[in-house]
Amino acid sequence: MEKVTGTIVSPKGFHGAGMHCGLKKRKKDLGWLYSDVPCQVAGVFTTNLVQAAPVTYTKALVKKGQAQVIIVNSGNANACTGEQGIQDTATMAQLAGAALAIDPSLVAVASTGVIGQLLPMDTMAQGIAKLAKEGSGRDFQQAILTTDTCEKSVVYQGKIAGRKITVAGCGKGSGMIHPNMATMLGFVTTDAAIEQTLLQELLAELTETTFNQITVDGDTSTNDMVLVLANGQAGNPCIQPNTVEYQAFKEILAAVLTTLAKAIAKDGEGATKLIEVVTRGALDDLQARMISKTIVGSPLVKTALFGKDPNWGRILCAIGYSGAELDVNQLTIRLGEIPVFTQGMPMIFSQEDMACYLENPELVIQVDLGDGTGQGRAWGCDLTYDYVKINALYHT
Amino acid sequence: MEKVTGTIVSPKGFHGAGMHCGLKKRKKDLGWLYSDVPCQVAGVFTTNLVQAAPVTYTKALVKKGQAQVIIVNSGNANACTGEQGIQDTATMAQLAGAALAIDPSLVAVASTGVIGQLLPMDTMAQGIAKLAKEGSGRDFQQAILTTDTCEKSVVYQGKIAGRKITVAGCGKGSGMIHPNMATMLGFVTTDAAIEQTLLQELLAELTETTFNQITVDGDTSTNDMVLVLANGQAGNPCIQPNTVEYQAFKEILAAVLTTLAKAIAKDGEGATKLIEVVTRGALDDLQARMISKTIVGSPLVKTALFGKDPNWGRILCAIGYSGAELDVNQLTIRLGEIPVFTQGMPMIFSQEDMACYLENPELVIQVDLGDGTGQGRAWGCDLTYDYVKINALYHT
Repeated sequence: MEKVTGTIVSPKGFHGAGMHCGLKKRKKDLGWLYSDVPCQVAGVFTTNLVQAAPVTYTKALVKKGQAQVIIVNSGNANACTGEQGIQDTATMAQLAGAALAIDPSLVAVASTGVIGQLLPMDTMAQGIAKLAKEGSGRDFQQAILTTDTCEKSVVYQGKIAGRKITVAGCGKGSGMIHPNMATMLGFVTTDAAIEQTLLQELLAELTETTFNQITVDGDTSTNDMVLVLANGQAGNPCIQPNTVEYQAFKEILAAVLTTLAKAIAKDGEGATKLIEVVTRGALDDLQARMISKTIVGSPLVKTALFGKDPNWGRILCAIGYSGAELDVNQLTIRLGEIPVFTQGMPMIFSQEDMACYLENPELVIQVDLGDGTGQGRAWGCDLTYDYVKINALYHT
Repeated sequence: MEKVTGTIVSPKGFHGAGMHCGLKKRKKDLGWLYSDVPCQVAGVFTTNLVQAAPVTYTKALVKKGQAQVIIVNSGNANACTGEQGIQDTATMAQLAGAALAIDPSLVAVASTGVIGQLLPMDTMAQGIAKLAKEGSGRDFQQAILTTDTCEKSVVYQGKIAGRKITVAGCGKGSGMIHPNMATMLGFVTTDAAIEQTLLQELLAELTETTFNQITVDGDTSTNDMVLVLANGQAGNPCIQPNTVEYQAFKEILAAVLTTLAKAIAKDGEGATKLIEVVTRGALDDLQARMISKTIVGSPLVKTALFGKDPNWGRILCAIGYSGAELDVNQLTIRLGEIPVFTQGMPMIFSQEDMACYLENPELVIQVDLGDGTGQGRAWGCDLTYDYVKINALYHT
């Protein structure tokens, strides 16, 4: 497989557009993504018990297995908006379906932005009426952003049973148009042919090691959603479980999801650094992931790395309260490749080498529990003055 | 019962002292607290799997049921210091016992400060030799602090079976001499007579609703410890379970622990506000406590209140991911006494009244789930630039 340039509409038979309709002051706030033919759809959704109307709506749609359109707005999360919010989501689907002459029951809906305000449906209707049928993938990728500082997208290609297939993804991370919470959206398109149940299984499995392993501030949003659309236009024979083709597709999808997850972590609110934690030698993969995610979520580790301080005591402390089993006397911690703690005792290291390493915009913390074969990664970012500023200075 | 002025040595037969021995630059860093006679001792300790040497040591001592002295240093946590750290803790107990002519097996040890450095035992030995036998309770209360901005102590008195009994407590919170992590220490003395197993039961039960319900940054320290010493000098008949006397003592102890817990939350690193969350109407008390603690631990809620923003969407979001069961349509949220969300829908409120309320240095968030009789409180503080500064600017 290889990474190629392109956008969310690079896979065969996908189209997209994005525009400013008026939910935000100036930036793009409305977009759609659709396929020439109905797609197998898979989705994963927030585990927050308070779920926005589009989450409830699209979850039900994914259960039925097919979708052809995703309509997305930013600037308003349509969350905690009661019965009216659910009606408004259905109306968005109706309007998008009508405009594209596609069955509205195949239209998925996603929203991100401020909580607790009704969508201005006149504005939405006018926007949907004006949205281009042949727009650009980049416009769509921009329309889903809030205070993200950059677009997040990636395209991979590979061969499956002799056919070139393309998988593209885009996402929005932890920025907010109104800073209400870190809403995450991810969309993936592919022209590969694959059964819906298999696609759903694969997405759920890979989400555990990608999107579920990132954290910016520990707040699980009401609007999180990742959708995959597969339209089969690449012409490969439908991918079957436990085959070489399945393995090849899984690798490509994993690469797309991992790239998006890291990009979202790196662009966390106020972040100056991407922090990756790699844990090895745990009892199992789950424990390794728990440790990695606990470290990368610790405010004390995050502030230390913002301050370029190799404060391994805080890393060790986070490992201790992660809930994973461990023997401190078997434990090794490295910052980059520099050992700072080995088998229960602090290590002496070159302050110069360390200071130099901590200047990097991407830092890796390596933990080895020396206890088993479990491994897992997690990604996050540092905690900075700007995080506090972004989230404290705004007034609802 | 009534709150009275006094210190940790106000109960009959207790003595204490504190001094600067040289672990810190200038501030007091060594203290002891002892009783004329052996005490029943109860203790609760950090659940972090990485535990400092004094935690392991004192845990074993509490299991045996009696103690007469607590020797405490600040400025060095004696954590992650291997075999030498354990020996150093035992030496501290030996030296303190010898200096006070008290059996060293009755000496509890607590440490707080930087992780991963051996204690300078020459300095410690010289300090212990110089420590006053008849010092002041306030000196002890100061010697256990790190970057706390104030002493935290409280004294209550009440009558048990016609005898006046006194319960005093002091604590240190989320400051750090070296900003390694929020180490919490709490010490309680009483002249009441009570059996050890009953005292231990009571402390464990009350810790759940007091110290375990505060959070500053979600990082559970390697050194947390709360000890209660009861020397029986008040002359009351030994308190028995399920009696009026037991209930009276429990109320006084609860008042002492709650006061200390709130004081620690209020003096969290960089804090400008104490935040109290009161949840009612949950299925049970445990779920109510979970909700309260999740809200008060949310970085987005903490930054909003620092910014004086009534951002109830973030409160609702935290309730949703707290792990507790809920029906949004039954849910009410109040800031102070002002309803902001009622039965699934946002409320319109006076911006002026709200702005005025959010100026208070102590804020109360009230949640009612309308679902049962469970209730629970939690305490925390806002997340400010100074939290980031304190934890990022220091270099190990």
